[in-house]
Amino acid sequence: MVAFTYRTRVAWVDTDAAQVAHFSNYFRYFERAEQELFNTLGLDMLSLGTKYQVWFPRVEAHCRYLHPCKLNDVIDVELHASVLTEKAIRYEFKIHNISEGKLAAEGYSVVVAASSVESKAVPIPQELVTVLKSRLETS
Amino acid sequence: MVAFTYRTRVAWVDTDAAQVAHFSNYFRYFERAEQELFNTLGLDMLSLGTKYQVWFPRVEAHCRYLHPCKLNDVIDVELHASVLTEKAIRYEFKIHNISEGKLAAEGYSVVVAASSVESKAVPIPQELVTVLKSRLETS
Amino acid sequence: MVAFTYRTRVAWVDTDAAQVAHFSNYFRYFERAEQELFNTLGLDMLSLGTKYQVWFPRVEAHCRYLHPCKLNDVIDVELHASVLTEKAIRYEFKIHNISEGKLAAEGYSVVVAASSVESKAVPIPQELVTVLKSRLETS
Amino acid sequence: MVAFTYRTRVAWVDTDAAQVAHFSNYFRYFERAEQELFNTLGLDMLSLGTKYQVWFPRVEAHCRYLHPCKLNDVIDVELHASVLTEKAIRYEFKIHNISEGKLAAEGYSVVVAASSVESKAVPIPQELVTVLKSRLETS
Repeated sequence: MVAFTYRTRVAWVDTDAAQVAHFSNYFRYFERAEQELFNTLGLDMLSLGTKYQVWFPRVEAHCRYLHPCKLNDVIDVELHASVLTEKAIRYEFKIHNISEGKLAAEGYSVVVAASSVESKAVPIPQELVTVLKSRLETS
Repeated sequence: MVAFTYRTRVAWVDTDAAQVAHFSNYFRYFERAEQELFNTLGLDMLSLGTKYQVWFPRVEAHCRYLHPCKLNDVIDVELHASVLTEKAIRYEFKIHNISEGKLAAEGYSVVVAASSVESKAVPIPQELVTVLKSRLETS
Repeated sequence: MVAFTYRTRVAWVDTDAAQVAHFSNYFRYFERAEQELFNTLGLDMLSLGTKYQVWFPRVEAHCRYLHPCKLNDVIDVELHASVLTEKAIRYEFKIHNISEGKLAAEGYSVVVAASSVESKAVPIPQELVTVLKSRLETS
Repeated sequence: MVAFTYRTRVAWVDTDAAQVAHFSNYFRYFERAEQELFNTLGLDMLSLGTKYQVWFPRVEAHCRYLHPCKLNDVIDVELHASVLTEKAIRYEFKIHNISEGKLAAEGYSVVVAASSVESKAVPIPQELVTVLKSRLETS
């Protein structure tokens, strides 16, 4: 299990007329944490994609909303990654509203590797699995 | 069960560098269909909110992605609404990619009524339940 | 001058905590009108892009905000297109808030043709210029 | 003149099918820098808004796009704020693409103070002017 935390703040554009972060944006916070995890692991999504002719679509996403986040609230996106199968990675997320001291949301997404030249699932590049697994063993 | 379909197209800004509609946008398509359902039923979300001091946060959202949608694809968002309990409405969604003739995604969300003056769940205004139920009986 | 109007409604996610459409979304409304203009003219952006190895980045965008738009307001995006030079198209926009009977915003954007294989501006494909000009002469 | 720099990265959702940051997102980067400037100055937008019954709509926004930003590029949003009149603040922005070593965009926005109880422009709260001006004198 690879764990990682990404901190940000709720932006104006993230809020809606109910004066809280729009529910769809939690999925964007999730993905941003995943992006920063890759950066931390020294993995370059774009290079991996080009090198292996692969991309990483989501096949499932889920979120449970527990406590709303307001404009400018500091939030921590806690991410746990696990290699489910040779073709799928599962991310579990928690969003902690640091300004409020509350758990704001929890969710997950499932990502697969897919060929960028034909429409089919392919194995996750071994290079990526190796990095995730080595990080897994040391954490 | 109230059924409704909202048709739109995948916009430039909805796509990402993988050249398909970003997964978070499916939740926005879902919500837009809900908005248009309310308009069709003659229900004004803002007026309801002000009149009953209530808003309708999501407590859960889920999507399964089956087939990607490209720029400018025509999509139909099919929505089924059911009153779960006195405090919760459940929407089930399907996104049909009309341009591709494929089911693109399916998901659901659960919406509750919450007080806009204090932080607690409240019953869904009877006016809204009545409209949803009358539509339910006639469809 | 090619004129076109695209009608939509302000969505939940378009609004922000000030309970009006977020200023950045006006540029998205502009672009959506442009997309629908192309559809109306029978021009397929993606096919054109692939055929001529070209894409159409914006080099400038401007908006003046006159009157806010609230959730669910019906808006008309009025677009006027003119071929500025062999490499640039200029769009002028007006957003009419139909629900309020007011002019909400006006703006413009300048779009150029750029090679998708190397980083440089190229002439707008003649096929596109011809369609825009023929429409121009008949309107 | 108050100067401030906010650093971020281009997220997946910020990109579009042309595989660069969507032009509308530059305005969101601008606003995020403004939010962080306020945090740095110890000014709380929400409290100010409630205290003075005021909000800060944009009346104008402009951007010139010089060089595209790709997924995951590090960008610095450089912001200069000046109090134009008793009712308007002008922000000038530059987006530096640090990963590419290029100036990506430059733009500006004009923000006014408006009453949140009736539809009219009001003077910018003196508390905000004082902080901006004191910072101005020392920088």
